Formats: sequence, structure tokens, C-alpha cells
Amino acid sequence: MAIDVAPTLTDIHAAAARIDGRALRTPLLQSPFLDAIAGRRVFLKTECLQHTGSFKFRGGWSAISNLSPQDAARGVVAFSSGNHAQGVANAAAQQGIKATILMPADSPAIKIANTKSYGAEVVLFDRATQSREDLAAEFVARTGAVLIPPFDHTDVIAGQATVGLEIAEQAQELGIQKADVLIPCGGGGLTAGVGLAMAETAPGLRTRPVEPTGFDDVARSLATGEHCENSQRTGSICDAIISPTAGDITLPVMRAHCGPGVVVTDDDARRAMRVAFERLHVVIEPGGAVALAAALFYPQEFDGDAVIAIASGGNVDAQLFQSVLSD
Amino acid sequence: MAIDVAPTLTDIHAAAARIDGRALRTPLLQSPFLDAIAGRRVFLKTECLQHTGSFKFRGGWSAISNLSPQDAARGVVAFSSGNHAQGVANAAAQQGIKATILMPADSPAIKIANTKSYGAEVVLFDRATQSREDLAAEFVARTGAVLIPPFDHTDVIAGQATVGLEIAEQAQELGIQKADVLIPCGGGGLTAGVGLAMAETAPGLRTRPVEPTGFDDVARSLATGEHCENSQRTGSICDAIISPTAGDITLPVMRAHCGPGVVVTDDDARRAMRVAFERLHVVIEPGGAVALAAALFYPQEFDGDAVIAIASGGNVDAQLFQSVLSD
Repeated sequence: MAIDVAPTLTDIHAAAARIDGRALRTPLLQSPFLDAIAGRRVFLKTECLQHTGSFKFRGGWSAISNLSPQDAARGVVAFSSGNHAQGVANAAAQQGIKATILMPADSPAIKIANTKSYGAEVVLFDRATQSREDLAAEFVARTGAVLIPPFDHTDVIAGQATVGLEIAEQAQELGIQKADVLIPCGGGGLTAGVGLAMAETAPGLRTRPVEPTGFDDVARSLATGEHCENSQRTGSICDAIISPTAGDITLPVMRAHCGPGVVVTDDDARRAMRVAFERLHVVIEPGGAVALAAALFYPQEFDGDAVIAIASGGNVDAQLFQSVLSD
Repeated sequence: MAIDVAPTLTDIHAAAARIDGRALRTPLLQSPFLDAIAGRRVFLKTECLQHTGSFKFRGGWSAISNLSPQDAARGVVAFSSGNHAQGVANAAAQQGIKATILMPADSPAIKIANTKSYGAEVVLFDRATQSREDLAAEFVARTGAVLIPPFDHTDVIAGQATVGLEIAEQAQELGIQKADVLIPCGGGGLTAGVGLAMAETAPGLRTRPVEPTGFDDVARSLATGEHCENSQRTGSICDAIISPTAGDITLPVMRAHCGPGVVVTDDDARRAMRVAFERLHVVIEPGGAVALAAALFYPQEFDGDAVIAIASGGNVDAQLFQSVLSD
């Protein structure tokens, strides 16, 4: 089976069937306090409550559960700043498969520690000077392990797309006909997946990628028609979504299914984290909070009386969270 | 209809029907990290994610939605350290009913502010010198408002009991046949309600009240057969559950349906809050965290391979939460 094309709706439903009972159907939370800030109804899809603390568990489970027994026996390898690492590590461990994870040495300590605790072998590298793609390719050549890339992979995107299927169902239950769905966007696996899933199941819902200032390659790529790259590799607290550029599979999907990108500051993300703590009682990591920040603090970017934001992850060090609460 | 008797299963199902689509069906969260601490599977029923940040919204909605139009027109009054206040205030506002809330002056600032924001009138009193029951009776006599007590009320208990119906369903979905269900216990509305709901729908699940040291009147009442009272009125960070004594309706129900009470320290609650932040990405207030603390740190109190703890609320000041994270 090809793994380097965008998934079809059939692939997405197949991933949903493999994930059923394994991933959590995360709730859509709401509060009149958030509605008052945004000037419209705000719903938060809480993937920060997902197993391993982010939506990445879905893609990891989807890809690993679709390996042939021969491939599974060779083990898997992934590169990740942390959330994909944890998702793959946990999904692999539950399925009895060996996992090796290449992680930037400056990843949040809790993400490195957790990845090891799930039973994976962790290899650290320098994000500024080493190419994670090259390191992974070298590891695959040396060991025969199967690479589970963070976004450009049919089954990974299909797994993340199950978030979109759930949003489509939950929006229908809540009577939301028309809304922008805001998504923290790094390589675009979640954004592309949700866009694909909702295009056919919830045509009134439009996907909008959200990125931090200085790491807005997707917003620029969508605006210009070129495949843009970020000039920086570090320099935002939004560690989960500062990948250098979107994928060759994910970007065309986003062009087909997304509205314009939205860009927020690190300070916006911190404010959104604090609102989520105070009003919804969920913990969101900085990169996971950019969509909620857009919903709350950039209302002029959206039309309609409702907006759905995805909180994509919750793995944040206690020290950073304390600092956010004391802002 | 009598409002001073324990609800029947029919009352509970009726409350569930009134609440359907209004209250959130909160998820049961789990993590291998929690299982490792406790030595068995731990599931957290996250009522801290409920509207207004606690299960109290259920009881408030249940009682107010069952008022006659004549009673509703007179408005409602409640006394509460904060969570019942917010639950009643929000449920009343959504149903267009005037609410007045009597709150201890030392309630967490966020709970007072939120109760006002939901549209209720707040009257502060001194927890150490004034009787909230007397103040409420005086207010009812003066204004004709309908009292919505925090626990000793058929419809309030029936509303809280819907948590038990959901746990019974969710346990079945997860294949949990037999487990203790640990419940933060103040006046006993939630504990009694869940005990009643599960007695007939999930006989393998046993309710266990959990209280903080110095405020263990229910544990003592269950152990001795007397109706015990706490000698202190203040002196724990677990503000949500330090009511002076259990109710005349709730205590007999707890005698009929609960296993022995469990007592944990304030420090245990703080540690549980930190674990919930780090591993599950939910915010629990101190009083809401005592059941999780029991599950994690008092494993010898329980049998079997699974335990379900309710996180009853999430309304905690940022300053206290920062202090917990820096322990």
C-alpha cells in the first residue's frame, strides 16, 4: 500500500475503526467566559486530554496498527520534538513493538522523560545543526526499522483525521452548522487530516491553520502559492509546531481545504493557556494553545457565530506553566 | 412532590433526562503513569471539566429545571463555598431565573467572581461565626425565594447521581466489572447520589467517600453509626468539602451503599493535583483531588485491579496552583 499519498475518506474511516476504543473521544468544552472574550461561541476540542497528552497518539496508533507483521518485527523509528515521540512510543509499546525516537536535545524535559517511560529508546540530537530527516534515514539504513514520520505519511494523516470525524459529529450534536475550525499547525498532519475528514462529512466547517509569529510558513505558503520555509529553527515557546516547513503531502491538501492561515504571538498563546486553566480547567502547552488564542484574541479573522479551536497538546513543564500563571 | 427524601432510581433517570444535552458527559481519563504509582489501573472521572467547573452544575440544573413556574418566578437562593454557588447561578441564568447566593467571605476569589459573572447576586458571610442555614432561612422568609440546598434535597441528589449513571456506563464500556469508586465527600450529595445510581446499575462498583484530615465526619459516622460533626470549620485547603457534617438525607444513603471512608492529608491532595496536571492535563482543585490522592497514595485501602476516582471540581486560584506546582 502506498504511504506517501493523502488518505482518502475510506482510509480515514479505516483508521477510525483501528483507533476505536484505543484513543479517547475528547470532549468539546465551552464556557460563557470564553464566549464573552471572543464575541461568539467558542468550542475547544481537547486533544490535550488524549492519551500521551496530544493528538499524535492517533497518528502513531493508526500507522503502527497498519504495519505488516514482518514490518512490525523490525521495530519503528520516529523523529519528534516530543508529542509524536510520545504517541509513537506508547502506541508501539501497547502493540509490543520496539520503538526508537530521535528527539531534539532542547525538547521539554517532560517530553523526553515521558518518551523513555513509555519504553522507547531515545536518541538526542541538536535541532540547530543536525537534520532529523538525515539522522532518521541513516538509522533506518543501519537497523531496518520502519520510519513513522510525523506528518507526511498516509496512515499518520488518516489517524490525525479522526479528530475531524469527531468534530463533525460533535458539531452536529451541538447544532453547529457553520464554523471555522482552528488548528495549531506545524508540519500540517493534523490540519490536512481534519480538512480532509470534514470536507465530505461537514461541509459547513472550514479548516484554518494557526501558527506562531516567525514560524508562519503555512500561512505564507497558502497566501503565495509557493512552498515556504521558516528562516528560524528556534525562538518560540511553541515547540510542538515550529517544524521548518509543511509536508509535500500535507501542503497540497491544505491548499485544497483550508481558509487563510492565522498568526498569533507567543504572548497570545500564554494568555490562552491561562484562560483555559481558569475557565475550562485543562492544561494546554504553548504550541497547542495557538488556535484558542486566535479564537479569543483575533475575532476579526472569523465570520459567523461559532468557532471551534483544537487544543492539540498538553505536555508542558511545570516551571513554564507556573510562569504563564504569574503573567 | 417531596424534596426531603432520597431520590429513587426513577427520580435519577428523570434528572438524567432533564440534564441530557445540558451537562457534559465527562470523560474517564487514564495514564500508565498513574497506574504505576497506584499499582493498579486508575480511572479519573473528570467533573472538573463540567460546566462551571464542578459536578454541582448537575444538581443545580436538576433542581431548578424541576421547579413549578410559580416557584421559578420567585427566584432561588443557595449557600455555598463556591461550586454549588456557580452551578446554581449558571443553571438559573440559563433558565432565566433570578439567583441569590450566600458565600463565605473566605471563599476562593475566583469562585466569588465567577458566581457574580454568571449573573447571580452574591451576599458574603463569615464562615466562623454565622450559620449559613440560618441566613438562608431568613432570606427565604423575607423574599419568598426557593432554597436550593447544597445536598439535602431530592432533586439535587438526583442530579449529582447522574455522575454515577455515567460511571456505570463507562465502566461497562471499558470492561471494568469490579472497582471501588472514590468520591470527594463534603455534605454527601455526590457520594449518596452516585451510591444510589450505581447500586442498581453497576453492583460491582462500590462507593467510597474520601475526606481531608480533620474533616472526616463521614468516615467517622460510617465507622461508629453516629452522626458525627467536624470540630473545625476552617483549616484545610480543601474548601469545597469541609462542610460541618453530612446531611440527614445523604448520611443514611451512604450507610446503605458506601464502603468505609478514606482520609487523606492536604499534602496528598496537592501531590494528586500535580500528578493530574503533569499526566492527565486537567486542573483539579484541592477538595476535588482527595479521591485521586486516595487512589494514588493509599493503595492498601483498596482491593482489585482497578479504581475509579472522581475529580469533583477544578476551580482553583492561579496563585494556589502555582504553589502546588512548585512543591
